[in-house]
Amino acid sequence: MNRKALFPGSFDPFTKGHEAIVHKSLTLFDEVIIGIGFNASKTYYFPIEKRIEHIKSLFKNTPGVRVLTYSKLTVEFAKENNAFHIIRGLRDGKDFDYEKSIALMNKDLNEQIETVFLLTDNIYGAINSTIVREIHKNEGGIEKFVTNSHLL
Amino acid sequence: MNRKALFPGSFDPFTKGHEAIVHKSLTLFDEVIIGIGFNASKTYYFPIEKRIEHIKSLFKNTPGVRVLTYSKLTVEFAKENNAFHIIRGLRDGKDFDYEKSIALMNKDLNEQIETVFLLTDNIYGAINSTIVREIHKNEGGIEKFVTNSHLL
Amino acid sequence: MNRKALFPGSFDPFTKGHEAIVHKSLTLFDEVIIGIGFNASKTYYFPIEKRIEHIKSLFKNTPGVRVLTYSKLTVEFAKENNAFHIIRGLRDGKDFDYEKSIALMNKDLNEQIETVFLLTDNIYGAINSTIVREIHKNEGGIEKFVTNSHLL
Amino acid sequence: MNRKALFPGSFDPFTKGHEAIVHKSLTLFDEVIIGIGFNASKTYYFPIEKRIEHIKSLFKNTPGVRVLTYSKLTVEFAKENNAFHIIRGLRDGKDFDYEKSIALMNKDLNEQIETVFLLTDNIYGAINSTIVREIHKNEGGIEKFVTNSHLL
Amino acid sequence: MNRKALFPGSFDPFTKGHEAIVHKSLTLFDEVIIGIGFNASKTYYFPIEKRIEHIKSLFKNTPGVRVLTYSKLTVEFAKENNAFHIIRGLRDGKDFDYEKSIALMNKDLNEQIETVFLLTDNIYGAINSTIVREIHKNEGGIEKFVTNSHLL
Amino acid sequence: MNRKALFPGSFDPFTKGHEAIVHKSLTLFDEVIIGIGFNASKTYYFPIEKRIEHIKSLFKNTPGVRVLTYSKLTVEFAKENNAFHIIRGLRDGKDFDYEKSIALMNKDLNEQIETVFLLTDNIYGAINSTIVREIHKNEGGIEKFVTNSHLL
Repeated sequence: MNRKALFPGSFDPFTKGHEAIVHKSLTLFDEVIIGIGFNASKTYYFPIEKRIEHIKSLFKNTPGVRVLTYSKLTVEFAKENNAFHIIRGLRDGKDFDYEKSIALMNKDLNEQIETVFLLTDNIYGAINSTIVREIHKNEGGIEKFVTNSHLL
Repeated sequence: MNRKALFPGSFDPFTKGHEAIVHKSLTLFDEVIIGIGFNASKTYYFPIEKRIEHIKSLFKNTPGVRVLTYSKLTVEFAKENNAFHIIRGLRDGKDFDYEKSIALMNKDLNEQIETVFLLTDNIYGAINSTIVREIHKNEGGIEKFVTNSHLL
Repeated sequence: MNRKALFPGSFDPFTKGHEAIVHKSLTLFDEVIIGIGFNASKTYYFPIEKRIEHIKSLFKNTPGVRVLTYSKLTVEFAKENNAFHIIRGLRDGKDFDYEKSIALMNKDLNEQIETVFLLTDNIYGAINSTIVREIHKNEGGIEKFVTNSHLL
Repeated sequence: MNRKALFPGSFDPFTKGHEAIVHKSLTLFDEVIIGIGFNASKTYYFPIEKRIEHIKSLFKNTPGVRVLTYSKLTVEFAKENNAFHIIRGLRDGKDFDYEKSIALMNKDLNEQIETVFLLTDNIYGAINSTIVREIHKNEGGIEKFVTNSHLL
Repeated sequence: MNRKALFPGSFDPFTKGHEAIVHKSLTLFDEVIIGIGFNASKTYYFPIEKRIEHIKSLFKNTPGVRVLTYSKLTVEFAKENNAFHIIRGLRDGKDFDYEKSIALMNKDLNEQIETVFLLTDNIYGAINSTIVREIHKNEGGIEKFVTNSHLL
Repeated sequence: MNRKALFPGSFDPFTKGHEAIVHKSLTLFDEVIIGIGFNASKTYYFPIEKRIEHIKSLFKNTPGVRVLTYSKLTVEFAKENNAFHIIRGLRDGKDFDYEKSIALMNKDLNEQIETVFLLTDNIYGAINSTIVREIHKNEGGIEKFVTNSHLL
């Protein structure tokens, strides 16, 4: 059985925490699609081209990982790609309460699609794209939190 | 004793979860005012006229429910309408921590006004106006989450 | 309409926080039954007779309050007494996650019975029967947390 | 690749919520071991023989599920059985905070072993072995929460 | 040893809850710097000059308190001022999950800097700058939540 | 000013997480008393003598740390020792909700005594005495979680 999963997010930017989740997912799935959600009405901090290039560079030698962008409902993008599992990383109880709402809505929209939660390892537990952007805005270095951050 | 309550919100949109809370409230109160808070400086997704029309359609045959809009402090609107209880639905612990802050502030502003929390039933637990808007923006169908959604 | 509610608990002991919840409930219900759950296989700290006597003393001049004991399922005791609402006080998000599980199970057992949550006011927010017992065991005074504590 | 996972617990009793987690796990793993943890110093409500018999009956026609008991560290039992993923169901943020501690300790004890969290579906969200035992003790029916509950 | 701490925030506005945290901090530290973070790309509700003037007025007779503004990373501002502890007030579990992420990131950026959490006292527990702004926008009085609110 | 704090707990056993909290506390206080609470009616896993010996060994070369046992109310023990701050480590939101109740009760019992919360560092975040005991009972090694664990 070929098991395929979607790891969706805006990845603005893609942190070491996200990176670890992808590596963990590869022990569960044969193929992991990193889906960069793109919403015309939203403002992003790092340009989409940079984010794609950055994420691709991180997995160029990792078989089983594909990087795609999408601008439709996550469940529809998942289904189109025959990915019946959605992967989400969790850091704390507050995270979970939020992710649970989305996972249940996704299930209501397409009951074939299941969300799988993996733990953001303790060492990456503090990494949070919002705070990374804040550090970058304030001209702090983000290389501790983002691999190959010079590509962004 | 005539017991009257206010169920305030922006209801952008009014979901099946909100609908169930109103029906539960009618076992506790003789009259339930659905108060659509309107704030000139905020941007809403569904136009206010549509939201009023939609909510009114849902309760046109339900005695004891009124639909009003307001643009002042919730506690003042409640008092003006002789509603001494405010109703809020709860889904999870995160929700409660947020609602608790508001309930306590409201009590500080007018100590006669008490907040009553009802459980958003499991079957509607995932419904969340924010996510419903997101689905609508991405052209997904929202009829599973909103009764008579064609009115919006 | 005569609205009756059950406020169940082991009340070991009945704190000022519980007391405030009963007074708030009387603005919603015509009758509030304080139901002291008694389970033969559990060990209690304060004897049941003391707890009954203590709670009765607190409401002897408050019309609409009855104090009863029961040793069956809470929903069955509620139904037997024609009380279709169960009252619970909430202090924080952790409380809510726990109470929610019980409320949903109760609803599964009898769908006519709804749980109503009221906020344990900030001034009583720290009161917790477990900690009150701990203070009592360590010979600390509990009169700040329990009205008429000499009756226990 | 043959993917094997361990679903550990005391399952006292094994609820419809647990049952749904096993079925979800089978979309991720080729084999799921239901591991009934047995600790000589603990007291259980339902006898171990009944629990084994009950769980086996539920999966007798489901290929890929094995039911075993163990009385050592969960990570050691997992390793012995070549199961490198541990499955846990989550209902709310409080659950997650607890499960996270155990998952991180397990990872410290054996870094090859990863915990995978699946959502306890809304319809089973209220099911909790502790409450089910409480209902059973009070002579309430548990058949709504436990399939084939007569076997217990 | 001269112990110095930074209490950072946007303080839009500085509430009685913040005020109490500063007084508690003075039992731990010889000097407390109230650092008003200023970010050119953000919009604030109360003008920065008003906020500075307001906070200074509150502590004009309290030795050991200084009021400064900054527009760089909090950890860098702390270090520049030889403040090796950052103070944060906590109200509930949701607050903590958020503050924890920031504290851990700050520690990653500068491991000499430790965050100290103090409890926002129950009496101020409901005060929240966001809700205070909302009340002010709706022309409600904020003097219960903000000392000398006429200065804003 | 001589600042003294109490770090209370049952420390059954004293983990690397507790150890780190003591070291952090020494940047805030001139003296830290590790108070091992002893309650005749409770059962402990590691004998009190072993726990005392173990903790003393860890700090024998650290000035400013004393190890004491007590069997009265924590706030009274603190006051007796002129320690006006109580130190607690926090891992997650659930922890905080629990610690907050105790801190507020302690404040009600003695308003001079303030609780200071420090973050259990990410690297020790999973360490939890309950789980460490569980591992020990199941004959797993605990040396990763407890310094000098052979002394226990």
